[in-house]
Amino acid sequence: MRITDLGEFGLIARVAALQPAPNRKLIVGIGDDAAVWQPEGLAIATTDTLVEDVHFRRRYASWEDVGWKALAVNVSDVAAMGGSPRYALVTLGLPAETAVEDLRALYDGLAAAAATYGVVVAGGDIVGSPVAFVTIALYGEAAAADRLLRRDAARAGDLVAVTGSVGASAAGLLALDGDLPLPAAALAPLRAAHLRPRPRLDEARVLVAAGVRCAIDLSDGLAGDLGHVCRASGVAARVELARLPVAAAVREHFPDRWPDLALRGGEDYELLCAAPGPVVERARARLAEEGLAPLAVVGEIVAGPPGQITLLAADGRSETLATGGFEHFRR
Amino acid sequence: MRITDLGEFGLIARVAALQPAPNRKLIVGIGDDAAVWQPEGLAIATTDTLVEDVHFRRRYASWEDVGWKALAVNVSDVAAMGGSPRYALVTLGLPAETAVEDLRALYDGLAAAAATYGVVVAGGDIVGSPVAFVTIALYGEAAAADRLLRRDAARAGDLVAVTGSVGASAAGLLALDGDLPLPAAALAPLRAAHLRPRPRLDEARVLVAAGVRCAIDLSDGLAGDLGHVCRASGVAARVELARLPVAAAVREHFPDRWPDLALRGGEDYELLCAAPGPVVERARARLAEEGLAPLAVVGEIVAGPPGQITLLAADGRSETLATGGFEHFRR
Repeated sequence: MRITDLGEFGLIARVAALQPAPNRKLIVGIGDDAAVWQPEGLAIATTDTLVEDVHFRRRYASWEDVGWKALAVNVSDVAAMGGSPRYALVTLGLPAETAVEDLRALYDGLAAAAATYGVVVAGGDIVGSPVAFVTIALYGEAAAADRLLRRDAARAGDLVAVTGSVGASAAGLLALDGDLPLPAAALAPLRAAHLRPRPRLDEARVLVAAGVRCAIDLSDGLAGDLGHVCRASGVAARVELARLPVAAAVREHFPDRWPDLALRGGEDYELLCAAPGPVVERARARLAEEGLAPLAVVGEIVAGPPGQITLLAADGRSETLATGGFEHFRR
Repeated sequence: MRITDLGEFGLIARVAALQPAPNRKLIVGIGDDAAVWQPEGLAIATTDTLVEDVHFRRRYASWEDVGWKALAVNVSDVAAMGGSPRYALVTLGLPAETAVEDLRALYDGLAAAAATYGVVVAGGDIVGSPVAFVTIALYGEAAAADRLLRRDAARAGDLVAVTGSVGASAAGLLALDGDLPLPAAALAPLRAAHLRPRPRLDEARVLVAAGVRCAIDLSDGLAGDLGHVCRASGVAARVELARLPVAAAVREHFPDRWPDLALRGGEDYELLCAAPGPVVERARARLAEEGLAPLAVVGEIVAGPPGQITLLAADGRSETLATGGFEHFRR
């Protein structure tokens, strides 16, 4: 069955049926002109979009992958502000010939991410479009303004640290899109890093509790995202290549490209933070206690031209990095 | 200059420059991982999308028109819940060859609507896409749950009333898309109704104050939207064709089609409400006092099969209307 046979209202009825159990604070959910809820604390709002053949290809990404990732990348933005995700509005742009089972798979992926990260799908829109796209607007909450994770709060002397590892998502994209003949055991984690990112929501909570106040999620690549932090904060930074947390599989299968993948690959959805040494140490200890992702110190914030990132190589040489980050329109 | 020459971050910088002065409640605006604000009352959230060649054609719609309408239709949804719009997240999907002046025109239209309806653009996303689309997620606020305008609050015996007039937007689309040779004086208001809808935000406030608790905005057409209200409320309705507020230009230039345009045309962005007679009378009087759009009684809510709409024609005959409303996938 094609979705053209269902019509818009049939689709909305199916979406409503897939909706998780309403949260007790959700006063009006799917089916009215707008959703209504009782907010708590500060409101956080973000939106991110995946467009077919720009952000994913059906050749290697299932509809379930697309549904998961569309929500996960928004959760990552809310985590990177120090907030908790609550309600999502889901917009689907779909060609009329889309199969109903594909729509169901997309919602299965979305529902899995929603359940994992405590998000309720509170509304949305389904429109005809010659190209498939998924846009999610995600609403979250934070306790107070002085407990946010902002981009403009880095200070000279802060350490720069990164959760988990970097480069695996970009390596996964190279492998999937380029059909690289990697062993299955090596491909699986790279593929998962690219198609099923796990936003660092629990880690963000620990960072806030430990006193971190400056963070960003790694979507554009470490160099670009650290550049955003440094420009917003009016500072520069030094990064040591040897300290970047890069998975062994990435180093092994991309022996020449791993530094580039780690610095400029993007879509890691790790958290990069800047904080004084004792705060970073406290955060590292608490993350370890809770069995969460590790936090690796990769460099430091220094006084200097705002946004300038200096890379120190293993051989002692240094270079200034371009920090334009990932640009969709130049891809 | 093409937007591909600017790159994503250049675009975001331009968008930030176009942002209205931050609201004093807006704690973090454009330029961080997410926007942050201090909410008041209940949160209302809605999203609507315009896709090129599905919802508009560049042949007759300027980019300014598209920017205005993309925000206005979302404001209409917030009005139809009885709320006040506050913050918008704007997602633009644009082909790389889009000219920067087109992007600026789109933002001019958007900024004009934002200023008119008191909305602050607090964030968004710009992505490459083979087809142009604009998705807006709009956040609004309402005072209390017992002052919302809901779809499920119609009761047998209520009058059904409509603000302004119906059919002009669909007539405008027919004239624009079909290049009908209408006199300029006739075309202008139809064109404006279709391309520059004026959501009934002030009228919604008056309806709420007068005691109305059931309303919907007319996006799918009067028959379809009244059908939504009746299904949600478990009631039926009767509508008198002779009482529909249809502009003289629509009756004159579409002598055979005006009933269909008025009942099924869609995109009127008027408010349809259901309320006891004295409440409707009070609302009519207050709207007149404030010089706002008139409220026309067009029928009544009756006990009957949920969602069934009966149309009474001028000659006394009656028919049951199909209330599937406008369906993008069957267009």
